[in-house]
Amino acid sequence: MLGNFTYYNPCRLHFGPDAVSKLADELAEYGPTVVLVYGGGSIKRSGLYDQVTTMLRAAGKTVAEISGVMSNPTADKLREGAKVARDANADLLLAVGGGSVIDYAKAVAVSAWCDDDPWEKYFLRMEAPDNRLIPVGNILTMSGTGSEMNAGSVISNPQQKLKIGHVFGPELIPRFAIVNPELTFTVPDYQMRAGIFDAFNHIQEQYFSGDDDNTSDYVAEALMRSLVTSSLVAVADPADYEARSNISWVCTWALNTLLGKGKATDWEVHMIGQAIGAVTDAAHGMTLSAVAPAYYRHIMPYGLHKFVRFAVEVWDVRPEGKTDEQVACEGIEAMEAWMDRIGVVRRVSELGLTPDMYDDVVKGTFLLEGGYKKLTPDEVRAILVASA
Amino acid sequence: MLGNFTYYNPCRLHFGPDAVSKLADELAEYGPTVVLVYGGGSIKRSGLYDQVTTMLRAAGKTVAEISGVMSNPTADKLREGAKVARDANADLLLAVGGGSVIDYAKAVAVSAWCDDDPWEKYFLRMEAPDNRLIPVGNILTMSGTGSEMNAGSVISNPQQKLKIGHVFGPELIPRFAIVNPELTFTVPDYQMRAGIFDAFNHIQEQYFSGDDDNTSDYVAEALMRSLVTSSLVAVADPADYEARSNISWVCTWALNTLLGKGKATDWEVHMIGQAIGAVTDAAHGMTLSAVAPAYYRHIMPYGLHKFVRFAVEVWDVRPEGKTDEQVACEGIEAMEAWMDRIGVVRRVSELGLTPDMYDDVVKGTFLLEGGYKKLTPDEVRAILVASA
Repeated sequence: MLGNFTYYNPCRLHFGPDAVSKLADELAEYGPTVVLVYGGGSIKRSGLYDQVTTMLRAAGKTVAEISGVMSNPTADKLREGAKVARDANADLLLAVGGGSVIDYAKAVAVSAWCDDDPWEKYFLRMEAPDNRLIPVGNILTMSGTGSEMNAGSVISNPQQKLKIGHVFGPELIPRFAIVNPELTFTVPDYQMRAGIFDAFNHIQEQYFSGDDDNTSDYVAEALMRSLVTSSLVAVADPADYEARSNISWVCTWALNTLLGKGKATDWEVHMIGQAIGAVTDAAHGMTLSAVAPAYYRHIMPYGLHKFVRFAVEVWDVRPEGKTDEQVACEGIEAMEAWMDRIGVVRRVSELGLTPDMYDDVVKGTFLLEGGYKKLTPDEVRAILVASA
Repeated sequence: MLGNFTYYNPCRLHFGPDAVSKLADELAEYGPTVVLVYGGGSIKRSGLYDQVTTMLRAAGKTVAEISGVMSNPTADKLREGAKVARDANADLLLAVGGGSVIDYAKAVAVSAWCDDDPWEKYFLRMEAPDNRLIPVGNILTMSGTGSEMNAGSVISNPQQKLKIGHVFGPELIPRFAIVNPELTFTVPDYQMRAGIFDAFNHIQEQYFSGDDDNTSDYVAEALMRSLVTSSLVAVADPADYEARSNISWVCTWALNTLLGKGKATDWEVHMIGQAIGAVTDAAHGMTLSAVAPAYYRHIMPYGLHKFVRFAVEVWDVRPEGKTDEQVACEGIEAMEAWMDRIGVVRRVSELGLTPDMYDDVVKGTFLLEGGYKKLTPDEVRAILVASA
């Protein structure tokens, strides 16, 4: 059943090999000052930095920069960037990078003109913005998080051992997104694989919730099937445009609010994964892949019918002559076989997480209501042990 | 493969039993003058007219009206409505009705301030608007066309025996859409069934094109499966909210530009159906259902692999031990069995189309390039004969 909701996603998304050329049109919509937001040197090595700054100059923009955005952007880095954007009086924050850079740019967008401490206001207290916001646009270089077309932002505080995501309102959705799948060719293999599982799990977090089997569930299955097919091609040949373009498109739609319509949505794998990320600084997608199988095996009895459907519709498990439990387990086993084929992390120990750190992870894991079973802290610990 | 495209759909869509209550917020975004656009008396009988006009008064709006919009809105009616909107100096066109009413409101939106004849400029010559546009919002009372969240508009000219659709740019996408599936409960059964097949065929027109098997094809299959499941419930119990809500949501996504990304798109069934509609004034969805099976049988050899996929993925045809041709034919047969179960028109003769009218239909059918085979006029005639 699809109850009351509003669907509104005004991002203008330019896709394909020529997408970066659309930046010129987009820049014309904003005032003279652009703050360019990026991570390390990869966009300089790839030539994208030169291409973008040339276009910014041609558009007559004054450019300030926030560079060195890390893969798990920190509260300290947020405070630093907020000051840069405010001092520059930015008309546009142009994020060039993967999900971390875009997440970070959104956090800067709400923080630049915020007189409160932004980590405390927006992440610890989860308040809605009530100050001037700076528009965000992005050029995506790595697919996975879906940040290019949603209002989510995840910021870490290593001192507090916390990593917290805030999904803002539609005013924080990037005004434009430029998604050229060819730009993702240069992403290290490890990051590509992490991004693929991140998107897969975004779909799962929405799919394994509610018991309604509505249109969103059908679309979720479609996106999972497409992603599985394309991912197997991409790990064999990362420069296969057809595979990478489908992966990029699935990643965008996996988390741009469509799939959550009519669903309670779970997000518990992300809560555990983010808590692991807070203490290990591991790649986000790999923190999810390390715990997802154990999590789903744990909650399977509480949503068995959906795990049967997952097995049959996503993995083509044949149900004839089997119990629901057998069918459901075969679905998880098929998912694990696929995870092994695409090469994602399957054990938390591979991320540097040792048993002495479990307390911090359990403490840092938010326990949400939306899934088939609200976990207890002991259950989080059991999932870590099962994923050790 | 997903090549270059821009995805941009800034419609704010309010869904669910409480959706009409969102109208107040939406009205606040526009100036004082609203032109209410609707069809016959059904919205008066249902009480929706009173509810909406009360909200308009509460918002302090001056209201003008264009009523009597017919199911195949005519060029003459367009000229009449354009004058009403211009004389009123409308700040918003609020369409309350089904696809015809919303299509018509978009045509008025581009025509009110157009000094040229709008039928000739926008439909015969297919020009882009270069004059002031009036924003459009809508309250949907019948699902099917997807007009609530796209930029398409179809207008008929009975004197010229033409019915022509123009897909405008994103500036013509309704600014807001209010979709309460309960409002569709009062639609006559015949119209509900027509709307279901209209949406199904929108998906097919995009699915049966290109040979790429990309993400859009997976999503198309998901929407077809969801629609088939829900339609069978809805024809048995039209007041089943779960079924009707899924039907409404599928209808919206069947034609809001998403499914066409990476696809050539066909639209030939719509071209034939519109030509039939121009000479019979039949319900749009039924003109499609009457010719679709013959059309797909005709083009099947040119896109056989996709018809095999359609059979297996949408209709669960088991391919083992069968030729591709057999599998593909079983898919079409399964579709026909479903069409009979939901009760849509299967013969053009049921629409009042007699062989003496075939010449006009053939002449009025635009022959497009996007499908697996560009038809000749003789092939259009053969499809009519096979559908007689």
